[in-house]
Amino acid sequence: MSVPPAYEFDLATDVRSTAEATSFDITIDAGFAVLGKANGGYLVAVAGRAAGMALAEAAPTHRDPMASTAHYLAAPDPGPAQILTTVLRAGRSASQVRTALIQDGKVCVETTFTMGAVRADGGAQWWSDRRPLELAPREECFRVPSRQEGAPFDLTIMDRVDLRMDPADLGFTRGEPAGRGALRGWISFADGRPIDPLGLLFLLDAFPPATVDLAASGWVPTLSLSAYVRALPTPGPLRMVQRTQVVDGGIIDEVCEAWDSSGRLVAQATQLASVRFAEGTVAPPSAPAVRR
Amino acid sequence: MSVPPAYEFDLATDVRSTAEATSFDITIDAGFAVLGKANGGYLVAVAGRAAGMALAEAAPTHRDPMASTAHYLAAPDPGPAQILTTVLRAGRSASQVRTALIQDGKVCVETTFTMGAVRADGGAQWWSDRRPLELAPREECFRVPSRQEGAPFDLTIMDRVDLRMDPADLGFTRGEPAGRGALRGWISFADGRPIDPLGLLFLLDAFPPATVDLAASGWVPTLSLSAYVRALPTPGPLRMVQRTQVVDGGIIDEVCEAWDSSGRLVAQATQLASVRFAEGTVAPPSAPAVRR
Repeated sequence: MSVPPAYEFDLATDVRSTAEATSFDITIDAGFAVLGKANGGYLVAVAGRAAGMALAEAAPTHRDPMASTAHYLAAPDPGPAQILTTVLRAGRSASQVRTALIQDGKVCVETTFTMGAVRADGGAQWWSDRRPLELAPREECFRVPSRQEGAPFDLTIMDRVDLRMDPADLGFTRGEPAGRGALRGWISFADGRPIDPLGLLFLLDAFPPATVDLAASGWVPTLSLSAYVRALPTPGPLRMVQRTQVVDGGIIDEVCEAWDSSGRLVAQATQLASVRFAEGTVAPPSAPAVRR
Repeated sequence: MSVPPAYEFDLATDVRSTAEATSFDITIDAGFAVLGKANGGYLVAVAGRAAGMALAEAAPTHRDPMASTAHYLAAPDPGPAQILTTVLRAGRSASQVRTALIQDGKVCVETTFTMGAVRADGGAQWWSDRRPLELAPREECFRVPSRQEGAPFDLTIMDRVDLRMDPADLGFTRGEPAGRGALRGWISFADGRPIDPLGLLFLLDAFPPATVDLAASGWVPTLSLSAYVRALPTPGPLRMVQRTQVVDGGIIDEVCEAWDSSGRLVAQATQLASVRFAEGTVAPPSAPAVRR
């Protein structure tokens, strides 16, 4: 007998076995959406859960995503969908699983996972050259709402995550982006769900695009999203930064990093995305360019 | 009539069509090896060439890799192999292709590509917060040899690439790593081949592991390698840095960045890899840890 999941994220990422060992049923939750479309990190998390289940026979201890790379081929709608899994390799310390999220016979997202065991004690010793993010105390930060008066769209996932952004990075909301191409904030689940490896896969893609800190732009569709889970976070909200490193030819990259309350870098993501800034230019028209 | 390729890299990445439109023949070149095993970036470059050929009908202008993520499942031997391609999506500005490198019926590497057109003029306007790498002038740098007296192994690819490392980062060769977890140098093809997007995929994985700058370790096998090609480089050697950001639980990440002579960041890679440092510890025993 399994206890019904208590948290929104667990309900929304429920993965159900079928008669076919490599096929799983899911329901894409309308609550994990931005502008009516399912959030990319949420879709990776659902697939990651299926990947762990796909290894139940071949590598039962490899339940946690250590690395994932997702390719977004089509945007699925809220509602029923399937995940097909292919175990590429069942290894000793890590295994690889490819997943396809399919709706109405169409592959919407293909994600490949490196699976392993992300242990709480994995980093009894660790090293990093990345300093823990400096940002304003959480109580001085601004919680991003799911809807704002006058806004043309809803950010439904902001009811699921509690994202509090550093006031210093909110110039873009007044039409005055700071021009650093970076956004910082505190992030956690709105209903207090503890943050585990699957939760990290979702949270790593829950920030607004960092390009808003450069210039106004249209939709920033992800081409490819890679995430690394480095450690199980200590309890509490994560410090997170999303930053753009290069804007070139209508393409941007974004790096996302998350530190837990102990100052440990627990997760990293990098993505390549398309962008069209206002005025039809391929680079931010108002940003203080380092070069050009 | 095609002119025979003149450069080593073009010969080594030759991809031959077969009667099957989704199957290509290749020959894994013994010259692009480290410790007798084919270099990971070289294998991605071969697959990337096949991915471009696989789009000849559906998206003929999408010949260049914009992004790639490779999963290494088994190490292929030099000699004949096949690449099977699956076009996941043929889009307007970008397409996605999955490739499987197969030898003796076994999938050795699975790589998924975002393909497009990396134009020389793509970045008439561009922005970056990443400053071009500062390193010693090329003539003061040290060319990494393919074999060294007393060394237990050959770095065969160092005859194919001309990698000149900054003397400040060579302490590890004397048993005195600087402890920054970073290596800098100038890189180009040894035979003067111009650097194009396929060449970038290879060069992004040609550096030694940055962990040598922390502590002595064994082999550092890549679990997952993602690369982004951002622009066509101007002629000449690239400035490149390979750096470790986090060592945790026997797993490291490494970021690699390449700038061309104009100061433009033309390529980026990130990888997750396993590492075992000397003395059996999970973190570098002698490195100046930021934490712990």
